[in-house]
Amino acid sequence: MTNGADVLCDALLANGVDTWFANPGTSEMHLVAALDRRPEIRCVLGLSEGVVTGAADGYARMARKPAANLLHCGPGLANGLANLHNARRAHTPVVNIIGDHASYHLPYDAPLTSDIESLARPMSQWVGRSSDPQTMAKDVSAACSAAINGPGVASLILPADMAWGEAENIPAEPAGLNLRAPDPERIAAAATALKSGRKVMFVLSGDTLLEEGLCLAAGICAATGARMTAAVSNGRVERGHTLPPIDIIPYPADMALQMLSDIEVMICIGATVPVSFFAYPGKPSTLAPAGCEIIQAGSFGEDLVAVLQLLADAVGATPCSDFAPVELPPEPVPGPLTGEAIAAGLARLLPENAIVCEESITSAREFWNYSKGSARHSLLQLTGGAIGIGIPLATGAAIACPDRKVVCLQADGSGMYTCQGLWTQARERLDVVTIILSNRSYAVLHREMRNVGITEPGPNARRMLDLDEPALDWVNIARGMGMNGKRVDTAEDFTQTLQAALDRPGPYLIEAVI
Amino acid sequence: MTNGADVLCDALLANGVDTWFANPGTSEMHLVAALDRRPEIRCVLGLSEGVVTGAADGYARMARKPAANLLHCGPGLANGLANLHNARRAHTPVVNIIGDHASYHLPYDAPLTSDIESLARPMSQWVGRSSDPQTMAKDVSAACSAAINGPGVASLILPADMAWGEAENIPAEPAGLNLRAPDPERIAAAATALKSGRKVMFVLSGDTLLEEGLCLAAGICAATGARMTAAVSNGRVERGHTLPPIDIIPYPADMALQMLSDIEVMICIGATVPVSFFAYPGKPSTLAPAGCEIIQAGSFGEDLVAVLQLLADAVGATPCSDFAPVELPPEPVPGPLTGEAIAAGLARLLPENAIVCEESITSAREFWNYSKGSARHSLLQLTGGAIGIGIPLATGAAIACPDRKVVCLQADGSGMYTCQGLWTQARERLDVVTIILSNRSYAVLHREMRNVGITEPGPNARRMLDLDEPALDWVNIARGMGMNGKRVDTAEDFTQTLQAALDRPGPYLIEAVI
Repeated sequence: MTNGADVLCDALLANGVDTWFANPGTSEMHLVAALDRRPEIRCVLGLSEGVVTGAADGYARMARKPAANLLHCGPGLANGLANLHNARRAHTPVVNIIGDHASYHLPYDAPLTSDIESLARPMSQWVGRSSDPQTMAKDVSAACSAAINGPGVASLILPADMAWGEAENIPAEPAGLNLRAPDPERIAAAATALKSGRKVMFVLSGDTLLEEGLCLAAGICAATGARMTAAVSNGRVERGHTLPPIDIIPYPADMALQMLSDIEVMICIGATVPVSFFAYPGKPSTLAPAGCEIIQAGSFGEDLVAVLQLLADAVGATPCSDFAPVELPPEPVPGPLTGEAIAAGLARLLPENAIVCEESITSAREFWNYSKGSARHSLLQLTGGAIGIGIPLATGAAIACPDRKVVCLQADGSGMYTCQGLWTQARERLDVVTIILSNRSYAVLHREMRNVGITEPGPNARRMLDLDEPALDWVNIARGMGMNGKRVDTAEDFTQTLQAALDRPGPYLIEAVI
Repeated sequence: MTNGADVLCDALLANGVDTWFANPGTSEMHLVAALDRRPEIRCVLGLSEGVVTGAADGYARMARKPAANLLHCGPGLANGLANLHNARRAHTPVVNIIGDHASYHLPYDAPLTSDIESLARPMSQWVGRSSDPQTMAKDVSAACSAAINGPGVASLILPADMAWGEAENIPAEPAGLNLRAPDPERIAAAATALKSGRKVMFVLSGDTLLEEGLCLAAGICAATGARMTAAVSNGRVERGHTLPPIDIIPYPADMALQMLSDIEVMICIGATVPVSFFAYPGKPSTLAPAGCEIIQAGSFGEDLVAVLQLLADAVGATPCSDFAPVELPPEPVPGPLTGEAIAAGLARLLPENAIVCEESITSAREFWNYSKGSARHSLLQLTGGAIGIGIPLATGAAIACPDRKVVCLQADGSGMYTCQGLWTQARERLDVVTIILSNRSYAVLHREMRNVGITEPGPNARRMLDLDEPALDWVNIARGMGMNGKRVDTAEDFTQTLQAALDRPGPYLIEAVI
């Protein structure tokens, strides 16, 4: 007999989804049993759902196709929502399969019952509930279509009786990529601005930050005198000395306001109009200067590289292949380790074709600047401000790209949120080097306290900002999850340890005490 | 100047809420600053929000008044929802303060923006949003009233400008306890049933499982021949050799059906009609036998002990003080450690007035049975089926009751969900002994696979159920979070190590390999 679970697995395979991240429970047991009949599906266990959903995000950013998440009822979904929030903000295609009680069992309000739709909707572009095993293939393709065309998070709720119910195995019709065509009026407006002699700034995100888009954008800038910047955070950026260098809008609002202060026209592609990450008393929400014309030339769901190609054609530009090479930073000065020394050391040692998953929070800007001259690499960022994505992101990226070295640049406070992901890296023997920036505090919050006018936090406040009593020992935490590691506190030891870790395959953790 | 954050702190204090559990972010910095001006508030940091909300639940179950949670925007709330689901099912009074962007910043859809109401509603009895610093005291008392009278979870969303906005410090009018009176018709129906000679079973939960309720219920049973059982899971049960022993409805549906098979009348107080935790193909959802009369004699929000008192009066019963003492199990046989040996060893060694937080999943039944003869203790259970509550629950219980020893009986798979809570125990120097039942698997799922008919899981399925590759090393994980521990694998070593840990104050972890 074929059941709904079998059809679901086959429909995902027909849609190219062959990698699942999961933490299943009782209501998903028929799905787990169906996985056993399909050895071509790789299903990766995470020991908390933040690991599961963050890994799916990292996988899909690199594989450029969705992963599936298998989640257990409302609470299992809830545990994964923070990283789904990040995936939603990155516009990563993700398909959630959320198990629920059998449909006839729901009215009894058994202990695990909850309103899954209400939980899923804020972080999903599409929410559906399977109500007939016979339409399972259609439901799955609808979810996949929403995920790849949004692009974004699609959540399919699966009552247990839909999984175990008998179903005819009608092959799924795979969802097609169906992006909207660029809007000619907005292209014309942007082209006019580029030819006007006014001070134009491109704000880029999404696929415009991959190789083809970056070269097109740099070519347009070279031809017209416009400048370009990446949005404050981005799902994926291709970077390194063989690609046109690009700046990024700083997270601190004051720095962002200064960077954008003389802009007369802002052309957003993929990115939305830049706004302050948080509001602060007496400071503006928007970052563009007063009177700046804003042109939203391309949005997610459109072919963003085609937008740049049309603009290049309109101004007679060709993809840039000629740009001033950015030099690597000098070797870090021996002595006590600093965040800057870590950023410089990593930028220098990064191997060709590496993937960097970056959740370094207060040390992010140094790495962005120093790594412009690094070997060619992909950079994945924290997109939605929900901390705890670095370790899971690296886990998923390593599964998508087993031939590439993955480096996770991870702040300690946010790393603790999903430290369980180290176990999955150990289990799957992933080629990931995790660098913990161990400052034993939520350093960003110390800065934010100053931003709201408190220069001397007292005892109650300090206990909310500091992680130093007791200090976390990341090498022991890693060992507890089956991974080796080393603690370093000088620049020279960091450089040596990082080089050794990069030279050797498999997971490793460096606790970099700063 | 007094701001909204000051008023909020004072209004919570006026409502008796002086303990907060928190993981704040930028949008809560004014609240953190206000905490600094109120040293009488104890604010406890958790390194992930599952720790925060689970600790608040444990605190409130023991303190019998709400704790406050301070959570950062939608994703911070989302991380804490699973344990709020458990609190909701336990009917624990909890007040969530959920920071949000400044109200005027919300339309800009900054990266951390999300639909907080949609996330909060499924796990909250009451959801409000502060819209004026001047009404802050009223908003806080409304939240407290909902929490204590539900009783349950109340969520107050606090835009940053409501915290930093100027406010007159009008003292809050504290919320009063305002329970509904028992329903005389249902009391009369239950009394009639008790006097009818039919086979009556009480199904109890909530306050009926504390000392006064248990003695009343046992007295009624002694006078009428009725039997009594606790619901399948309960927020708090008072237990031990000086209290009337009580059974519990088993989690496995087959065992529950058998236990209840001959019942003619079921009187539910606090508990709802027993249903199967999950649905299984071909098995019933409800556990009461066909034709069984169900009387819901008392529900949460009513004075449940008063319901029992009225019933006792109606049948002429007095509180039970005379019952057959239950003997302790024999000393565990030396040799390889088993779940049974752990349950028996703990039941024997439990000190007077201890608190046991139990998330032992597949080993729960042994401990329930063996501990009937233990020293008097409070038992806190996993109420909503959302795993990862044991360590946080123990953390909160220890903060509520600094003079009582807390023992956390914790399965390894669910323990990993919120292992970060060990750090909070170390930081706050809490008197908690954590016993990890280390079977390196989601053992309950192995059982559930058999329940759906799969006796031999294949490689894909086994990788979803087993945690043995690599094995978690809990002693190292504990050390990494600042806590000492020891691994034991024989019954005699377990007993010795447990005795030593109970004799010494402060946090300790025992990895009990079974």
